[in-house]
Amino acid sequence: MISVDEALRLVLSHAQANRPRRLPAAEALGLVLAEEVASDVDSPPHDKSLVDGYALGSDDFARGQTELVVVEQIMAGDVPRRALAAGQCSQIMTGAPLPPGADAVVMWEQTTTVGEPVSRVRIAEPTIRPGQNVMPRAASFARGQVLLRAGHELRPIELGLLAEVGRGEVAVVPRPLVAILATGNELVAPGCQPGPGQIRNSNTSLLLAAARRAGAVGLDLGIGRDEPEELARLLTEALAADVVLVSGGVSAGVLDLVPAVLARLGVEQIFHRVRVRPGKPLWFGVSPASPAEGKEMAKLVFGLPGNPVSGLVTFELFVRPALARLAGQRDFPRATTRARLVCDHEHRGDRPTYHPARLEAADGEWMVRPLAWRGSGDLAALVEANALALLVAGDYSLPKGATIEVLPL
Amino acid sequence: MISVDEALRLVLSHAQANRPRRLPAAEALGLVLAEEVASDVDSPPHDKSLVDGYALGSDDFARGQTELVVVEQIMAGDVPRRALAAGQCSQIMTGAPLPPGADAVVMWEQTTTVGEPVSRVRIAEPTIRPGQNVMPRAASFARGQVLLRAGHELRPIELGLLAEVGRGEVAVVPRPLVAILATGNELVAPGCQPGPGQIRNSNTSLLLAAARRAGAVGLDLGIGRDEPEELARLLTEALAADVVLVSGGVSAGVLDLVPAVLARLGVEQIFHRVRVRPGKPLWFGVSPASPAEGKEMAKLVFGLPGNPVSGLVTFELFVRPALARLAGQRDFPRATTRARLVCDHEHRGDRPTYHPARLEAADGEWMVRPLAWRGSGDLAALVEANALALLVAGDYSLPKGATIEVLPL
Repeated sequence: MISVDEALRLVLSHAQANRPRRLPAAEALGLVLAEEVASDVDSPPHDKSLVDGYALGSDDFARGQTELVVVEQIMAGDVPRRALAAGQCSQIMTGAPLPPGADAVVMWEQTTTVGEPVSRVRIAEPTIRPGQNVMPRAASFARGQVLLRAGHELRPIELGLLAEVGRGEVAVVPRPLVAILATGNELVAPGCQPGPGQIRNSNTSLLLAAARRAGAVGLDLGIGRDEPEELARLLTEALAADVVLVSGGVSAGVLDLVPAVLARLGVEQIFHRVRVRPGKPLWFGVSPASPAEGKEMAKLVFGLPGNPVSGLVTFELFVRPALARLAGQRDFPRATTRARLVCDHEHRGDRPTYHPARLEAADGEWMVRPLAWRGSGDLAALVEANALALLVAGDYSLPKGATIEVLPL
Repeated sequence: MISVDEALRLVLSHAQANRPRRLPAAEALGLVLAEEVASDVDSPPHDKSLVDGYALGSDDFARGQTELVVVEQIMAGDVPRRALAAGQCSQIMTGAPLPPGADAVVMWEQTTTVGEPVSRVRIAEPTIRPGQNVMPRAASFARGQVLLRAGHELRPIELGLLAEVGRGEVAVVPRPLVAILATGNELVAPGCQPGPGQIRNSNTSLLLAAARRAGAVGLDLGIGRDEPEELARLLTEALAADVVLVSGGVSAGVLDLVPAVLARLGVEQIFHRVRVRPGKPLWFGVSPASPAEGKEMAKLVFGLPGNPVSGLVTFELFVRPALARLAGQRDFPRATTRARLVCDHEHRGDRPTYHPARLEAADGEWMVRPLAWRGSGDLAALVEANALALLVAGDYSLPKGATIEVLPL
């Protein structure tokens, strides 16, 4: 058996970013950019007013002229038609272009109008400096300037920026496609009434949702019977995806056929069994890239334990980091945090254990409570859990207040 | 002008959870449950083996019998056909039901087979206690037991549990529908080449993405000209949604028509202008519920400043908490964190400022660097930002190492 760290290292050593694809920007939220994006415009495209008020030449004002003739009203979207001569100003709205001859804007609140209709304006502001309330052309960025580089994650901010520079499509690393196959003769579909000895398939629903939360696209391949030909047919279909999650069939039982069937399909075993609880039976293999056959990328195959809690834990520890790598994310800190136990806790076992737990902030500190848990088949115990408490191997007691590592879910 | 806290209090006092709706469980990820869910099965449905091995009666073993006759092989999904008599055992796989007469399972690794084909098995384990390697029927939960209560968020774990108890549909608080209307004569669609005085509409892309990230469904109403009839027509359409975001048109300019048009449509102003930078012009109003006209819920209308950074900041501060409330979330801690400045920082201004910043963890501590920023029109400055540094009002200098509050984006 290998350690969690070694298993993760092996998984990541086989995971690489998917080939870029061009997508509409509106579909690229959360994806990683795979090209450089330069601007085709200056931003702002003109010296623009930052306030509603009057555009004027600051040298006029320096000469003591505080009453100016209003020659034009400039709205955002307008093009100024009048250049300012000495003693003139233009009424201007936020975002509108300054007219020729203006180099500052005085806020509307600092003025009084003289005459009706407005034709002259008196300025109350004591001093006006050049550039006041003006954002110069290209102050944010200039035409041709690189705004985003490959590797950058597209968030709402970046989608706004892509719209501003007219990029309707971008090259991105696409979402990984994850095929999910549940195996086991005891399983029936969630819509069915289980007969004696049967249970409903909860793993597919859980893993589809976990894959979606991780930014991947899940593909439901249903339930495979413990029968080599059926499994071979379903796994062949699954291998069209980037990642295959097979749930069940990887223990030591006589019907744990998955590793043998995968071997027949050319999937190389990288490791089997990890020193972790729950999740020990985890199997990981790779179907190598074969450009000659049109298969550009290696496919990753995870044989997840059939118990749902084991499936969830191994997903968090190994599948999620692999999906982040496939999606082109450069760093994905394993988001563990340190927290203090709110109660004494006793641990027994020769494997590091990820124990369902409740994490809460109190007085600026994280506090953690391990929950009652009947082992890896007990999904209901996880309803109150929002984290997994990492308990190192060994038989020992931890006192209330002890600090342990916690993986938020 | 009111404070950020007072504005948020007013927004939330008008926001309430949407009416529950029944949805397929597969579409309910991230939503809040609006009913109680009880189990229709025992889990596990039978005393089940936790390992691959041999099921036996522990009293046999207590009598010193360490070699047993194998009478049956029981797979997961099988129903045992043979009750065990004294001196008998059944081979059993993980998850399979124990046969009558068995109360414990000994792991396969602790046994040796005697004779070919396997008919007898010798047990190497020194003691076997009743219940060993067995999960009793209903140990996780019993038929009729309430597993999930209204108000619980549906995560992958809960979707697995819903599948296990056969719930294909559930009553949930649906995603809020958010209509987004950008206003301004200067705007052209992202696919167009801007003419003189024009800019492309970046706000709609930014706000659609922000709404989606917040778990809402965005509805793009395009660009409205600064013209009362056009705005009235578009805003009437927008008011079919739960929340309306109007971008621009809420400053003091002569074409800032939005508040007046909203008043005409029966939207009551709750506040206008907030003591915050950027985002001061924020407008908030409510179109009251009117059950007689089939309008069950009040509609929330946010007039967001047209500058994209102001729009993003006011979205984070006010719209996101409102959307969480509409989605039925009970608590949504404003996720500010405290961080130390990595450099000296000078602040000037009479409003609390949310300044674009870079937040990084270093040695278990959060460090924050305020970024160069040319004000609310400067979207490009936010590309490197992953947080907003909260700088209180006033003219002052903060030394490197000072602790400030930060809102991660």
